[in-house]
Amino acid sequence: MKIAFIGLGNMGAPMARNLIKAGHALNLFDLNQTVLKELAELGGTISDSPRDASKDAELVITMLPAAAHVRSVWLNEDGVLAGIGKGVPAVDCSTIDPQTIRDVSAAAAKQGVVVADAPVSGGTGGAQAGTLTFMVGAPLELFATLQPVLAQMGRNIVHCGDVGTGQIAKICNNLLLGISMVGVSEAMALGDALGIDTQVLAGIINSSTGRCWSSDTYNPWPGVIETAPSSRGYTGGFGADLMLKDLGLATEAARQAKQPVILGAVAQQLYQSMSQRGDGGKDFSAIINSYRKPK
Amino acid sequence: MKIAFIGLGNMGAPMARNLIKAGHALNLFDLNQTVLKELAELGGTISDSPRDASKDAELVITMLPAAAHVRSVWLNEDGVLAGIGKGVPAVDCSTIDPQTIRDVSAAAAKQGVVVADAPVSGGTGGAQAGTLTFMVGAPLELFATLQPVLAQMGRNIVHCGDVGTGQIAKICNNLLLGISMVGVSEAMALGDALGIDTQVLAGIINSSTGRCWSSDTYNPWPGVIETAPSSRGYTGGFGADLMLKDLGLATEAARQAKQPVILGAVAQQLYQSMSQRGDGGKDFSAIINSYRKPK
Amino acid sequence: MKIAFIGLGNMGAPMARNLIKAGHALNLFDLNQTVLKELAELGGTISDSPRDASKDAELVITMLPAAAHVRSVWLNEDGVLAGIGKGVPAVDCSTIDPQTIRDVSAAAAKQGVVVADAPVSGGTGGAQAGTLTFMVGAPLELFATLQPVLAQMGRNIVHCGDVGTGQIAKICNNLLLGISMVGVSEAMALGDALGIDTQVLAGIINSSTGRCWSSDTYNPWPGVIETAPSSRGYTGGFGADLMLKDLGLATEAARQAKQPVILGAVAQQLYQSMSQRGDGGKDFSAIINSYRKPK
Amino acid sequence: MKIAFIGLGNMGAPMARNLIKAGHALNLFDLNQTVLKELAELGGTISDSPRDASKDAELVITMLPAAAHVRSVWLNEDGVLAGIGKGVPAVDCSTIDPQTIRDVSAAAAKQGVVVADAPVSGGTGGAQAGTLTFMVGAPLELFATLQPVLAQMGRNIVHCGDVGTGQIAKICNNLLLGISMVGVSEAMALGDALGIDTQVLAGIINSSTGRCWSSDTYNPWPGVIETAPSSRGYTGGFGADLMLKDLGLATEAARQAKQPVILGAVAQQLYQSMSQRGDGGKDFSAIINSYRKPK
Repeated sequence: MKIAFIGLGNMGAPMARNLIKAGHALNLFDLNQTVLKELAELGGTISDSPRDASKDAELVITMLPAAAHVRSVWLNEDGVLAGIGKGVPAVDCSTIDPQTIRDVSAAAAKQGVVVADAPVSGGTGGAQAGTLTFMVGAPLELFATLQPVLAQMGRNIVHCGDVGTGQIAKICNNLLLGISMVGVSEAMALGDALGIDTQVLAGIINSSTGRCWSSDTYNPWPGVIETAPSSRGYTGGFGADLMLKDLGLATEAARQAKQPVILGAVAQQLYQSMSQRGDGGKDFSAIINSYRKPK
Repeated sequence: MKIAFIGLGNMGAPMARNLIKAGHALNLFDLNQTVLKELAELGGTISDSPRDASKDAELVITMLPAAAHVRSVWLNEDGVLAGIGKGVPAVDCSTIDPQTIRDVSAAAAKQGVVVADAPVSGGTGGAQAGTLTFMVGAPLELFATLQPVLAQMGRNIVHCGDVGTGQIAKICNNLLLGISMVGVSEAMALGDALGIDTQVLAGIINSSTGRCWSSDTYNPWPGVIETAPSSRGYTGGFGADLMLKDLGLATEAARQAKQPVILGAVAQQLYQSMSQRGDGGKDFSAIINSYRKPK
Repeated sequence: MKIAFIGLGNMGAPMARNLIKAGHALNLFDLNQTVLKELAELGGTISDSPRDASKDAELVITMLPAAAHVRSVWLNEDGVLAGIGKGVPAVDCSTIDPQTIRDVSAAAAKQGVVVADAPVSGGTGGAQAGTLTFMVGAPLELFATLQPVLAQMGRNIVHCGDVGTGQIAKICNNLLLGISMVGVSEAMALGDALGIDTQVLAGIINSSTGRCWSSDTYNPWPGVIETAPSSRGYTGGFGADLMLKDLGLATEAARQAKQPVILGAVAQQLYQSMSQRGDGGKDFSAIINSYRKPK
Repeated sequence: MKIAFIGLGNMGAPMARNLIKAGHALNLFDLNQTVLKELAELGGTISDSPRDASKDAELVITMLPAAAHVRSVWLNEDGVLAGIGKGVPAVDCSTIDPQTIRDVSAAAAKQGVVVADAPVSGGTGGAQAGTLTFMVGAPLELFATLQPVLAQMGRNIVHCGDVGTGQIAKICNNLLLGISMVGVSEAMALGDALGIDTQVLAGIINSSTGRCWSSDTYNPWPGVIETAPSSRGYTGGFGADLMLKDLGLATEAARQAKQPVILGAVAQQLYQSMSQRGDGGKDFSAIINSYRKPK
């Protein structure tokens, strides 16, 4: 299949690589020439603009850092919609607010193009290993078309509903994740301060009603879960600044929907404080250090 | 075995009943004469005071509403310590602060009695069915002695460490539980406001990083989990006022330990607001109604 | 003076009326034809577009609901910058984020126009009475030019610094105001619940370290301050939805500046809850009802 | 007048000194022998117990660190109530929870003694200078008796209502103060991050709706108010650990009254975090450093 792939950053580049490996012909676009050359050597074709990349493509995929990029890459004069053919399937995999993708989708609809949103989870590790989760907002027919291609970059391809619901699912899940991690941090730090062994406490929580992914898979207390970032100095996981971005999307979407999110708003500010102290690059589970005496 | 059982409320009475069924001889004490008579008809013996009940007992169990009752039942002139024999095993199953049980334990130690703490989870349903979880703080030898008896009232008998760690484990777990439930409520209500199907959203969360007991077993959105209180009008589960009590214990223990618990403190106030509005008797998952437009 | 006045809503219309009264010739623009006709009858001239209104003006004033309107009124093809003469002083009185006015100002600078920001406080009452406070961000020279005209619409004309600082001053003041009002509400409601007379409590606070405008001038407890909205059913003051807008600007500006605002974020969510319950149209001091038992 | 003065710590000692200076004969009790000797040299009489001190006193004053001390000093076998004569006026100046003083008062009433509560504000500086504020909970007759004596130790003697209302007034005021100071800190730090001059911002706030004691008298930004602790390295004011104590009293009183205090609970946790980082001894306005980049 001839696929336009636009946005080749830390996530996009390995995703594109997996599609090349799977035998697709890729039209590539990014502002970074180095990564373009690397992927061209693997067999991709370099394009001059999103429009250019989209012209003869049978599928368009974009993976961009923020809503402003999505708007310009799709809607500008040399953007995707200026090049894409009528009826060609298209999907944006960026993590952005639901409204932006709905706006892009509405603009595309006017020229007979259906655009899905399919934000991912799984990080750069998942992008490289091809084990990402895709949360897809699309009409059923488009979902059926996208599913096999996304499956070459990921393991779980979940249909969430119409366009925009992929973003909603991701935003809501990560809102809860951001809260849970703070909750586990408070519970573990309190237990330690009161004198219970943290390994024992984690074991009890994990078999009780406090059980959650942030405790049983990604516990922030060093040594409780050997494979968690907390056991290797809070490196190599999901950075606090990325969690901060997602909580920003969640609280802003909530504001627009006139929906309160009290703990979510507090959690956002706590990660903001952590980032201000210079720890935004650490795994988000290092939020537990906000609850422990400095050594 | 001859067992003194003191405190026969909503939890204590069914627990005592299970011990009688298991063949033990019970010395019973409570201020409520009605329940005493009921249990006496099943074979128990009514005592005049905690001291009286403890006199010839081979094991003493107490199950009381709050720390003040535990202090008076154990330490008063006609309390347990005035009657219990040297070396007789003893356990308090109340949910209270860790310091009170440590104080009682220290007083008991002076007369050669070792007192464990073993707060439970599982509610009145678990007490009746004999499926409670006991979180036990006790020296290993005492734990070994208690384990078979507690197993006649519960399913999971967990050793948490020395005296007081049972309370710590329960407090920390319920702190996290109280936070998680608010987090799930915010995520589900936000998702609904933004336009995703709540059943779909719950499914995605439950197979992703937001996964937790409050979502996959006890989801607050009506209809998502058929067996959850939310699917039967928020009745018959763990009342918000009980959650409020536990969060009060957690934040007070944190205060004494000079340990911050930010989301925990906010969650406590949110359940307090819910209670003030008159909904303290509903299951704690009804906190989600604080996030939904009134109908 | 020939003044272009664009944006004639609840605030803009009475402000323009005061300028007409003061003897200025006004070029008027708004989408609402009714208000245009009303002001034309007082002597103003109706324009076809912001560009049109600005063409021969010696001063341009805009007063708009939100940042999106400011961008389009100033930057669109038929916007202010397409009509305004080089060197003509200009000021936007809208309450928006600091970045938008800085962007507009930078665009204006390219054609030799200096734009100030001068958001107001004082509400529709102050707009009618000509007693507004203007918080002005402008170079000193422009401030000197604007000062006498703004003084015909307001009482306090405060210079805050360069362009954008007017918005910053307003955002920061209202962030604190939003927090203070919740703080006073918690203190008054707690005092009442504990059994002190609220009039006495307010008196003590107002002569002590808790003293603040939200208590001594605008106390949320009915009857404490006769002239406060709380004493007339929370009507006719500063609506909770307007406070919500300002707190949204504050937390979003904070997010962009990577600056935590913890109590501000919580306060925003509390007003959001109040609004969701249907009380967004009441004066913001009605937040105290979130702390009182429903009758 | 013969006055029993019990509790001669950082506050009690200078208060007692002022009474001696005013010509009263003092019966003194404290566990600290050094301070007893110092005051004895000024003319006071050392007593062996609170009972002893109270025996021939015409007025009993206590000034103690916490509720537990108040209970024991008044109610123990060798406590005040064991020595005080029927009808002798009595007052406790400690800052404690309202319930404790009501309990002590009820016990005293049984033997014909009326006990007032009169917590103070003004710190050790105010105690030495005799410029304290006394918030007095007492029947009118007792208030009239106490007023002239308290006026020898303080400047403002405020009647708050019946016994307990002194504590309530202090708790509610300091709850608001703790919140306001965090609010001012967030507003000042945000303004600085956004680029407004902090001196200018403080000036605007102080003449606008954000005006409060924490801003216009005690601003946490260094240099804004020359006499504030922030301008001398956050030394010599009201320590964060003392604010933490008062917020603990407020949230605990709220919990017992089933009254939510959301911002108050968050503020408490923020001072707790500050204390955990080792800054509990600094003036409470140093909470602003939680919002500024570490240098």
